[in-house]
Amino acid sequence: MPLGPDAAGVYPIAPTPFLPDGSFDAASAARLFAWYREIGSTGVTILGAMGEAPKLDHEESVAVIQSCVAHIGGLPVVVGVSAPGFAAMRALARSAMELGAAGVMIAPPNTLRTDDQIVGYYAQAVEAIGKDTPFVIQDYPLLTSVVMTPGVIRRIVMDNPSCVMLKHEDWPGLEKITTLRNWQRDGSLRPISILTANGGLFLDFEMERGADGSNTGYAFPEMLIDVVRLAKEGRRDQAHDLFDAHLPLLRYEQQMGAGLAVRKYVLMRRGILTSDAQRKPGAPLSTIAKQEVDYLLERLARFDKRAGALKAA
Amino acid sequence: MPLGPDAAGVYPIAPTPFLPDGSFDAASAARLFAWYREIGSTGVTILGAMGEAPKLDHEESVAVIQSCVAHIGGLPVVVGVSAPGFAAMRALARSAMELGAAGVMIAPPNTLRTDDQIVGYYAQAVEAIGKDTPFVIQDYPLLTSVVMTPGVIRRIVMDNPSCVMLKHEDWPGLEKITTLRNWQRDGSLRPISILTANGGLFLDFEMERGADGSNTGYAFPEMLIDVVRLAKEGRRDQAHDLFDAHLPLLRYEQQMGAGLAVRKYVLMRRGILTSDAQRKPGAPLSTIAKQEVDYLLERLARFDKRAGALKAA
Amino acid sequence: MPLGPDAAGVYPIAPTPFLPDGSFDAASAARLFAWYREIGSTGVTILGAMGEAPKLDHEESVAVIQSCVAHIGGLPVVVGVSAPGFAAMRALARSAMELGAAGVMIAPPNTLRTDDQIVGYYAQAVEAIGKDTPFVIQDYPLLTSVVMTPGVIRRIVMDNPSCVMLKHEDWPGLEKITTLRNWQRDGSLRPISILTANGGLFLDFEMERGADGSNTGYAFPEMLIDVVRLAKEGRRDQAHDLFDAHLPLLRYEQQMGAGLAVRKYVLMRRGILTSDAQRKPGAPLSTIAKQEVDYLLERLARFDKRAGALKAA
Amino acid sequence: MPLGPDAAGVYPIAPTPFLPDGSFDAASAARLFAWYREIGSTGVTILGAMGEAPKLDHEESVAVIQSCVAHIGGLPVVVGVSAPGFAAMRALARSAMELGAAGVMIAPPNTLRTDDQIVGYYAQAVEAIGKDTPFVIQDYPLLTSVVMTPGVIRRIVMDNPSCVMLKHEDWPGLEKITTLRNWQRDGSLRPISILTANGGLFLDFEMERGADGSNTGYAFPEMLIDVVRLAKEGRRDQAHDLFDAHLPLLRYEQQMGAGLAVRKYVLMRRGILTSDAQRKPGAPLSTIAKQEVDYLLERLARFDKRAGALKAA
Repeated sequence: MPLGPDAAGVYPIAPTPFLPDGSFDAASAARLFAWYREIGSTGVTILGAMGEAPKLDHEESVAVIQSCVAHIGGLPVVVGVSAPGFAAMRALARSAMELGAAGVMIAPPNTLRTDDQIVGYYAQAVEAIGKDTPFVIQDYPLLTSVVMTPGVIRRIVMDNPSCVMLKHEDWPGLEKITTLRNWQRDGSLRPISILTANGGLFLDFEMERGADGSNTGYAFPEMLIDVVRLAKEGRRDQAHDLFDAHLPLLRYEQQMGAGLAVRKYVLMRRGILTSDAQRKPGAPLSTIAKQEVDYLLERLARFDKRAGALKAA
Repeated sequence: MPLGPDAAGVYPIAPTPFLPDGSFDAASAARLFAWYREIGSTGVTILGAMGEAPKLDHEESVAVIQSCVAHIGGLPVVVGVSAPGFAAMRALARSAMELGAAGVMIAPPNTLRTDDQIVGYYAQAVEAIGKDTPFVIQDYPLLTSVVMTPGVIRRIVMDNPSCVMLKHEDWPGLEKITTLRNWQRDGSLRPISILTANGGLFLDFEMERGADGSNTGYAFPEMLIDVVRLAKEGRRDQAHDLFDAHLPLLRYEQQMGAGLAVRKYVLMRRGILTSDAQRKPGAPLSTIAKQEVDYLLERLARFDKRAGALKAA
Repeated sequence: MPLGPDAAGVYPIAPTPFLPDGSFDAASAARLFAWYREIGSTGVTILGAMGEAPKLDHEESVAVIQSCVAHIGGLPVVVGVSAPGFAAMRALARSAMELGAAGVMIAPPNTLRTDDQIVGYYAQAVEAIGKDTPFVIQDYPLLTSVVMTPGVIRRIVMDNPSCVMLKHEDWPGLEKITTLRNWQRDGSLRPISILTANGGLFLDFEMERGADGSNTGYAFPEMLIDVVRLAKEGRRDQAHDLFDAHLPLLRYEQQMGAGLAVRKYVLMRRGILTSDAQRKPGAPLSTIAKQEVDYLLERLARFDKRAGALKAA
Repeated sequence: MPLGPDAAGVYPIAPTPFLPDGSFDAASAARLFAWYREIGSTGVTILGAMGEAPKLDHEESVAVIQSCVAHIGGLPVVVGVSAPGFAAMRALARSAMELGAAGVMIAPPNTLRTDDQIVGYYAQAVEAIGKDTPFVIQDYPLLTSVVMTPGVIRRIVMDNPSCVMLKHEDWPGLEKITTLRNWQRDGSLRPISILTANGGLFLDFEMERGADGSNTGYAFPEMLIDVVRLAKEGRRDQAHDLFDAHLPLLRYEQQMGAGLAVRKYVLMRRGILTSDAQRKPGAPLSTIAKQEVDYLLERLARFDKRAGALKAA
């Protein structure tokens, strides 16, 4: 099933599990993907920046895709194919689609500046991946330094029928969702899926502004799933109550650079990953940082019992 | 009293009040500064980026300094003097000190790259402001694009006896505090004051890592004051309870670019500012954004009664 | 006489002369401006980046403007008013026009990214300087990191009737001139003056592409004047012969950062400036660099006798 | 023969030849590499930025390496292995060395800011490529935005015995060569080879400052070879005479972004390449730009007969 503009719900951004020796941890990957399905995810995104994609060679990337497709139980799989050149992007996109992915995700390289450069880049990327490969725009200026106005996103969407989703992680970004949804309403933009990320830091209000769901990797994706559901049911206070209870930890995990270590550490403590190892370059958590995360987990457990059922640190 | 390395507590980052026609709102400024003192601030910082300093000409900057000194009741006043050239920096620093400021704050220009460039810049800045003018390093890479390692900060501190404080707003930045405090302990760094900012997003843990207090402009500075006090008293859970209750709003206010509008809007609703007007360039809050802030204030009022006693929006 | 879209010829970018103690060298300034007029300049630009404008306070800037207006013999004077905030820009633009300037020059701040941000910035700048103040767009991405497409320049020109000139120093930039001139021809862009800069490194071909002249500070502005004249007369080979003879030195002077020291050193050796001093920050030439410049001057003297009539180094 | 710190002479930066349909042009590659050897090159660098490396997939990169090793006649081959992640870097470096390369070249990613980040990056890169693989530091801030002080280069050289060469293309950069050579003289830096690039724009003086040769891709590498030889023989005036004759064309070719099209066009006109095609993204020369290059070639032919013996445009 190709990814379509009606995608909604929660597509967790999957970390890539490694063993302490740096090798790909296939057992943890299988467990992780199966778990995503069990808890109610509607899809999954792999090999993004938080999936340590640039640290994998082509064969390893293929192994991650295969593991995901095998264990995700038929949910749509989106594969990050951002690359410094179109040759590598083409090769990975082709492999991904052949292996059963539903679409690919493309972030712009941080050398782009003008509106035309950004629009032109996506036109060339579409040539590289093929016009029949559904793709997601990753809009993450904090990471890429590339600033896309709503108008630029509209140009990309309208120029390229295979563009089906926006991974929205501009910051601040609430007005951008409102603008795009208004444009859909007035007919100047065709419908696309908007899933939001940037660590989930504004998911509460993003849903109210018209997002279709979440596309981030917070270590309690159940919360993302519940908040998205509550918001869609119009249960505003409950959505915020749940979100706010997680916000202290979520904020801690959203730190640029350091966040992935927190995420893997919590997933390890939750029994999903065998190890919180990252490949180089990647800073591990200090002892004191682990204690801080542990403290946040203890506090969270007063509200969410899932945070209480942890393995020893 | 010149600013010293023993500065601690909360130095709010003051916004500059304007009337809807763009003129300086002296009445609100007087009220704001008096209020900072009343609630227990230990100092104040004016004419920072969030004080819209680049939108003021020299005479207006002088008026803000005079108002602050007149109404802050003898607390130390720190004046932002960052400028694209040393001529303007020298002129403003001289005016500030003559008018009664306790010290000045300097952020590096976003053209600096190497360690030596940063260290060299501060050496030249000290020549410009005079070696007897106490100064604060503003370390805010999200805003300035300048990344200072702990080692660079140490070089600046050790080279320049007039450096007395670090306005710490690196992100992520917890390990940086720990490193600097360890260096003080082992004697390789002389003592300096560390007040933290970046909107206050990590104040809870920054205090535990060894910060001396807070130097940000969150619209409920009473919370910053209470959290700093609770942390110093070792009442960890209470500090986090209070901090967490404010975190949803604080996070909303910490948005780059949009944050100042939130801050001024809340201060207006609290009756401190007459208007939430900003000078150009500066985006006002949309109607929906104001409603979001109102909702966050309502939720906060369940925990903190100060958030309940508001003027009508 | 206000600056108009018919401006042409050579507007040297004037350095600001200083004495070795860092004070403004009024005598050299008077000599410099008078000399510009004598050799056939058609205007002059002061207080640009190469005029060390950020190192001057407001009073000093006023002194430079007054000196220029007094000695330039009625030629149009363009004043750089780029500033981090509109307050300072407004103040300097007002002073400049009151003192007799013909227009002002505005470079975009290096925080701008999207097309709309750039267009919006110039709209606000025009509000600040007043709609009746003619202004020049400085398009210098190597210095500002701001990339303006031809389309963005057209938007600024068409939105703002007071925009009369483009200081073109994009690099590479030949196609940009051709595009803009084609747009003038097809009526989608109203006429503006295009003077080129970036140290003059492509003046030979820029004239052939349709530039109206030169707006740079090379230490032999007579060459710029002659090349512009020869090009307009259609004497292509002679224009290139002269340009090529100067290219080794011109290239040496065009180095970012180091170039101003070369320029001031040569102007001192030519007897125009009393000293080659720069204000801080500003690296002086090393002894070996001076010897390299001397060698280039000796070689140039074989072709251009003006390079032979120098003061001792 | 592994690359050593005694490397000298001219290592042309080879373009990757393509046919108009975008496929690798093996015949032109063979001709190009054989020609480099015949004219007196002492080595060659392939798969750099000007070799369109990011547009090749791994198999194509291997094909280029094989072609080069097969036709370069035993000269040392340096292979660019810069990559966004260490997995790809490791894979390409291993292939390169197995196929007979003498060493690899590594440029820093444009996200690095502090001195420690740069030094740390090279330490991790050495782990990836293996400590026995000789490598070249590519120091090209205009392309990478990474600024390396001489001190940072020294730290990399002293930390990593496998660092044997600096591809120097900082700009301005003459003082950097002098500083490094002084440090070799005083014993604080072990000897390394310094070959200079940045299009060759300062080769004349770089040789006089102590460079060992040239490492750029100018379309008349014979000139580079002759200038390096003349400089080493102490024939200063002759070196400059030859260099200056080529400077107008060399400057035209040195334009960022547009330069490769010029280079390939001239190599095509010289009969070395069958086509001047680039892979996307890559702007072709406009008709008028080709005419400008043709004109520069005509002018050059008056001085260097090689520029007269061209194929029809």
